[in-house]
Amino acid sequence: MTTRRPTIGVFDSGFGGLTVLKALLELIPDADYAYFGDTARLPYGSKSVETVARYAVEAAHFLENNGSALLVIACNTATALALDSITAAAHVPVVGVIEPGAEAADSVSKNKKVVVIGTEATVSSHAYRKALEARDLHVREKACPLLVPLVEEGWVEHPVTEQVARIYLGEAFGEGFQDADVLVLGCTHYPLLKALLHRVVPPHVSIVDSAESTGRAVVAHLENLLPPTPGMPEERRARPRVRFFATDSEDKFRRLGARFLGHAIDAVQHVDLKE
Amino acid sequence: MTTRRPTIGVFDSGFGGLTVLKALLELIPDADYAYFGDTARLPYGSKSVETVARYAVEAAHFLENNGSALLVIACNTATALALDSITAAAHVPVVGVIEPGAEAADSVSKNKKVVVIGTEATVSSHAYRKALEARDLHVREKACPLLVPLVEEGWVEHPVTEQVARIYLGEAFGEGFQDADVLVLGCTHYPLLKALLHRVVPPHVSIVDSAESTGRAVVAHLENLLPPTPGMPEERRARPRVRFFATDSEDKFRRLGARFLGHAIDAVQHVDLKE
Repeated sequence: MTTRRPTIGVFDSGFGGLTVLKALLELIPDADYAYFGDTARLPYGSKSVETVARYAVEAAHFLENNGSALLVIACNTATALALDSITAAAHVPVVGVIEPGAEAADSVSKNKKVVVIGTEATVSSHAYRKALEARDLHVREKACPLLVPLVEEGWVEHPVTEQVARIYLGEAFGEGFQDADVLVLGCTHYPLLKALLHRVVPPHVSIVDSAESTGRAVVAHLENLLPPTPGMPEERRARPRVRFFATDSEDKFRRLGARFLGHAIDAVQHVDLKE
Repeated sequence: MTTRRPTIGVFDSGFGGLTVLKALLELIPDADYAYFGDTARLPYGSKSVETVARYAVEAAHFLENNGSALLVIACNTATALALDSITAAAHVPVVGVIEPGAEAADSVSKNKKVVVIGTEATVSSHAYRKALEARDLHVREKACPLLVPLVEEGWVEHPVTEQVARIYLGEAFGEGFQDADVLVLGCTHYPLLKALLHRVVPPHVSIVDSAESTGRAVVAHLENLLPPTPGMPEERRARPRVRFFATDSEDKFRRLGARFLGHAIDAVQHVDLKE
């Protein structure tokens, strides 16, 4: 049994994965974290499977080389398009956001009918459809490409965002899916819109935030990897240390990232994956 | 004096530059074209100067290696952040979109007060401010990060887009700039919104479309490079041949690109700049 303090590697194309990191920090404060944001090449949401897989495998290698004992793919698009490629390329366990989200939707839905919203690439991959249909749920997937830019503009409680959400969700909960009772947030930007989306969806609808579900899945993985010891050593009880890496501007990462993480980001290290 | 038919290399991070290509095809039908869209790494508009410069120089080399006798940087962000780097790296003349846009604004504005809208990166670079102040114009620059995603969603005549434009332009033409009489479209996506923007700006405002201005600047460059011959040879009078190259999905390029170009795109060749 090891007593070393684990490092959890968290990867996203940009800032959205910070909502997953936020959930992880609350659930697993006795770990260290390395967060990698591939901000020079974001967004992944509109790119092809080959391109996303190539980028994601590079990011996974970077995090492994920086000591991560477990990788969290905190990006729905990368999970949807590249989880298999990442798992094949990595030497440590890999957790994506889609299975935990599907699992949570299954446990919450009473009439087994759910709506999933996400980027164009996530929806086109039908990764949620497959994960949910494997659990005998009926699924409608809806691409909402404007929600990420609206969140990044900071319009999380803006009438324009509410109007856009009403258009997208009106179509998603339309014909044949009026009785769907779960909305899965299939993009790590969307947790910032949770309050607004609660106002827009029909009142009987529960919202599944895959950032939270993924946090709980990581807890389970970590218990297998590093079982808790009865007399937990001091080093496991210290506050989490978080290192941030980004492929584009450090300044912008600090500025925009704080919004997703919910508190200030001190230091960001610039990484060029081509060097 | 040469009689060969020139190839004009046109470069953008994605699809917006096709509005410039469209203007070029109308103005210079007796040339061949190579269009390069760096769609795997778009958008440039939210990235840092170092990242954009590195990407843009790679694209310029690609177009030169494919026979371009002149390069058009059909992207405001790449022009703003990387025109000097591209010009230094290239062995052929390079035309950006900002000088032609500033020149047109100067010739149109009566009270020498203009508003420029563009991406976050273009506005932060203050490239338009410098080009316009050098001509003794008063300038207000306004970043409009939601307009590109709205165009890419196809909402070019949508009430949400009009509402967003009213918010952005209300701020831009606000205090101190109510009497500005020119709006410069400092992003090659915006020509698709020209009709909508005409409804939103005050009635005394002229719109300068830098795609058109750039087309006219290329005509002038080309006359220096390849002076028209009195008996123009047959090969200069044939229809333009256009080759398209993209770093991400060919399918998506064809689909989305047709909207910007105004007609169907037959063949797109995939390029991986890392290989």
